[in-house]
Amino acid sequence: MKSVKAVIDFLRSGNVSYIFGIPAGSVNAFFDELYETPEITPVVTKHEGAASYMAAAYAKYKNELAVCIGSSGPGGTNLVTGAANAMREHLPVLFLTGAVPVSTVGLNASQELDAHPLFEPVTKYSKRIDRAEDLLPELHKACEAAVTGVPGPVHIAMPIDVQLQEMTEPTLPPFPKRVPLLPEEAVIEKAIRQLTSAEKGFVFAGQGIRGAVPHLLELAERLNWPIITSPQAKGLIADDHPLRKGIFGFAGNETASELINEGDYDTVLVVGSSLGETATNNYNPNIAKDKTVIQIDFDESVFDRKYPVDTAIHGDSEVTLSYLNQSLQLLGCERTVSPRMSRQFESLPPEFSTKNALLRLQDILPADTRYTVDIGEFMAYVIHHMNVITEDSFDINVHFGAMGSGIGSALGAKLAEPHRPTVSITGDGCFFMHGFELLTAKEYEIPVLFVVLNNARLGMVHHGHTLQYKRAHSRFSQEPANISALGAALGIPSVRADRLEDLNEESIKILLEENGPAILEIALVDDRVPPMGDRVKFLSSFGK
Amino acid sequence: MKSVKAVIDFLRSGNVSYIFGIPAGSVNAFFDELYETPEITPVVTKHEGAASYMAAAYAKYKNELAVCIGSSGPGGTNLVTGAANAMREHLPVLFLTGAVPVSTVGLNASQELDAHPLFEPVTKYSKRIDRAEDLLPELHKACEAAVTGVPGPVHIAMPIDVQLQEMTEPTLPPFPKRVPLLPEEAVIEKAIRQLTSAEKGFVFAGQGIRGAVPHLLELAERLNWPIITSPQAKGLIADDHPLRKGIFGFAGNETASELINEGDYDTVLVVGSSLGETATNNYNPNIAKDKTVIQIDFDESVFDRKYPVDTAIHGDSEVTLSYLNQSLQLLGCERTVSPRMSRQFESLPPEFSTKNALLRLQDILPADTRYTVDIGEFMAYVIHHMNVITEDSFDINVHFGAMGSGIGSALGAKLAEPHRPTVSITGDGCFFMHGFELLTAKEYEIPVLFVVLNNARLGMVHHGHTLQYKRAHSRFSQEPANISALGAALGIPSVRADRLEDLNEESIKILLEENGPAILEIALVDDRVPPMGDRVKFLSSFGK
Repeated sequence: MKSVKAVIDFLRSGNVSYIFGIPAGSVNAFFDELYETPEITPVVTKHEGAASYMAAAYAKYKNELAVCIGSSGPGGTNLVTGAANAMREHLPVLFLTGAVPVSTVGLNASQELDAHPLFEPVTKYSKRIDRAEDLLPELHKACEAAVTGVPGPVHIAMPIDVQLQEMTEPTLPPFPKRVPLLPEEAVIEKAIRQLTSAEKGFVFAGQGIRGAVPHLLELAERLNWPIITSPQAKGLIADDHPLRKGIFGFAGNETASELINEGDYDTVLVVGSSLGETATNNYNPNIAKDKTVIQIDFDESVFDRKYPVDTAIHGDSEVTLSYLNQSLQLLGCERTVSPRMSRQFESLPPEFSTKNALLRLQDILPADTRYTVDIGEFMAYVIHHMNVITEDSFDINVHFGAMGSGIGSALGAKLAEPHRPTVSITGDGCFFMHGFELLTAKEYEIPVLFVVLNNARLGMVHHGHTLQYKRAHSRFSQEPANISALGAALGIPSVRADRLEDLNEESIKILLEENGPAILEIALVDDRVPPMGDRVKFLSSFGK
Repeated sequence: MKSVKAVIDFLRSGNVSYIFGIPAGSVNAFFDELYETPEITPVVTKHEGAASYMAAAYAKYKNELAVCIGSSGPGGTNLVTGAANAMREHLPVLFLTGAVPVSTVGLNASQELDAHPLFEPVTKYSKRIDRAEDLLPELHKACEAAVTGVPGPVHIAMPIDVQLQEMTEPTLPPFPKRVPLLPEEAVIEKAIRQLTSAEKGFVFAGQGIRGAVPHLLELAERLNWPIITSPQAKGLIADDHPLRKGIFGFAGNETASELINEGDYDTVLVVGSSLGETATNNYNPNIAKDKTVIQIDFDESVFDRKYPVDTAIHGDSEVTLSYLNQSLQLLGCERTVSPRMSRQFESLPPEFSTKNALLRLQDILPADTRYTVDIGEFMAYVIHHMNVITEDSFDINVHFGAMGSGIGSALGAKLAEPHRPTVSITGDGCFFMHGFELLTAKEYEIPVLFVVLNNARLGMVHHGHTLQYKRAHSRFSQEPANISALGAALGIPSVRADRLEDLNEESIKILLEENGPAILEIALVDDRVPPMGDRVKFLSSFGK
């Protein structure tokens, strides 16, 4: 058999169902083998960058390794953004690239590029495999690295001749699965002493609590501590939980800000947050000031990074929180479950604003909708204003922040959890970066509603410049393009809202019944200042 | 003044007119300064990748340094493909990226990424500048590297705090211009002896003859040697020149193939070709077999790479060829200028094929049209069949071969040489990768006709698989999308041709009169085998 068949057999043994990417000469042996592998669907995207966002979201919501592929040369380089994104987001994505035959390296074959040094700085493991017998062992090693410790992307470059080399059928190594990272017992004991002796503490939760939310809520309820989350963790805790005090950081809430800046807490338990710029409102010292800091993370490198930590618990959130809960239980810290709060939805004034449009939308869409939020001024409104009705309902990326990533994320998230209604909230800038992936959604019948906030400008850039410099270059704005007309031309059901009244149940319900993508264009130039002042403060603080 | 102003003043002193890219927080100080610099237009693109192709083409056709910019994080990584492309194509492009403030490195600021190690393998020079006083000297060094020796891309990362730092107005260093690389006299003399003592020789010209074509023709005419070119050099020599014997290599011509495989030449003069895969029909030994090989190149690394060279002349083509001509003149080798051949246009059968569509198009379009050719099966037809009526009329990229690059190239080429009618020949796969740049063309009023060969599949992949494996995965084909309807929805004049008769003067002339982009969609599924057999032979030879 060809050695590339062993690669596919190995992926199949790990129940890999989708491979995101674009075929080309240097990976044609791989794609040819897929012809005989109906268990694996190649999701042929329009741009490899979008494939990498799909894979990242798929890995996140399926909670397993996802696979991406690109050709030698441009296919590989187009995946670099996605590798950097997956690295920042700690998502296990296997990036496969083709490469020119080993015998022609350096001889300018078509699309020649040594992709390995490009992937090395943005992956946990990167190798070009020059001998067929190394392919499977190295692939195994890479997949293991991807799911172990701090999960992340890995890269294997497969030269054409190596893919095609004949070999006897190998015994497949077991497909790596994550083994939870267990915290040390002594550290847990120390943390328990600190938690139980605290006068008044609070929980600071980042996106690392994904998959561990019930345990986190249990712990907070046992301690009766309020919880604030980072923007990145928006949506992980429903906002009717009585202990939830909103979001701190970029586009955060006043409740959280008050807690940090005016509260008299003596202890903070940080779970799954690196305490980066956007989570901390530009490294606000009050988060840790005069407090005992206990931090749980699977990434050791976050401890003492900016905030000195008293007790660093190196472990997965889920298992660590569950140990803490067991210990508290034994110590008699009973769980006090207060009733969920009754929701108080603001009654909206009739003005057509980004805030009102998003909230009205949420009134109409199903309660369990997942929103994958792209990068733009609307992101600040989403974080600040939108309700969290169901857990794990927002996909936010204020970290790596790649424009257009929310479009790919929507497709990946929907493939991972087909039962959840999935809505991408994006803008015209993002749409023009990766909007042709709506055709991918159409071809693969992936039902996602794309809500495009079309203000015919790079809104975040426009507002950022206006706030910081009191002026904005005219080139940040463009002639308006009619995105719903564009969708209709592509055979994608589309509605355009020019007024708040256009956002009504009747018009939107039709879009949700699609067996593929649909577009809801919200055409609105909002000159109100988005709730993003702290980012501007951060950017402008360095010239002083 | 802010140190970023010095950067802009320096670029302005070098007559930089355009900066291609996308603004964001980490480069907002740079863009704010552009507000006061009307001499420099920021070309705000839809995707940074496309910006990098525009810059590369601009550098190529303007024959000077071009500038590209992206944010820290995704903006930077989205430029990596363009850097790799410019590296392969030897084009001087300065890539500028923003970076998080030096004081927050490692602290997860929004869009943090150390771009330097990513650019290092795909540029001639890459640096992150951590002190304002180093910014201008390093920028100068980078620009000098870009235009010196083998030209190529360079990268400078500018942290936010460095951009904003106040400094006294510096004295600007002189803006680097290329100094021609002069060949050694002794080597020229040796080459002259070989050229004049040859019984029968021919010229093998690559794209390195760009800008030196009159000298090359003069030399060939003095020696009375036939000329064959690489696919990449398609269009540089008009095909009515009596010494031109067509293209050798990927999608090449029978005339060139006969010359190489059946000719009894004793000498070959290679000019500006690395003799890579596509230029040599997979390293055909007959090119150099039993021949004296003389090779002219500004890139020393190409000598003896695959073919042993008897005389390696390290120098720019233009000046080297001009020296050779002077010597030949002194030796009495007079120039015999034969009359141009009369053009014999094939009379086309009425079938609607890719070949016929392209040739009919060429009948209608102005003779001095420049075609920027994207990546797809149509590329093989263009190389093999299209006429070269005017010099420097085709922009081909079979080297790095990034899908969608032909769209950006068209914009860059047109901005560099506004007087030339410019037509992008692209496909649906390429269009869905970077087609939203037509909006950039619209916003900046750049008149380019986009000819989209829409076969609703990745044609080169489909044909490649069918030829090599006798089957093709169904996912290489998609539901047809109506690209002219899409264009119309975006306010871009569009015509769709479903039959050969639809390609007529009347319909196309309207599109050429636009003060912006126009679309000519050619909807055609061509099941004929494109003239790309050698590429398939190359790919499939490695499994044997």
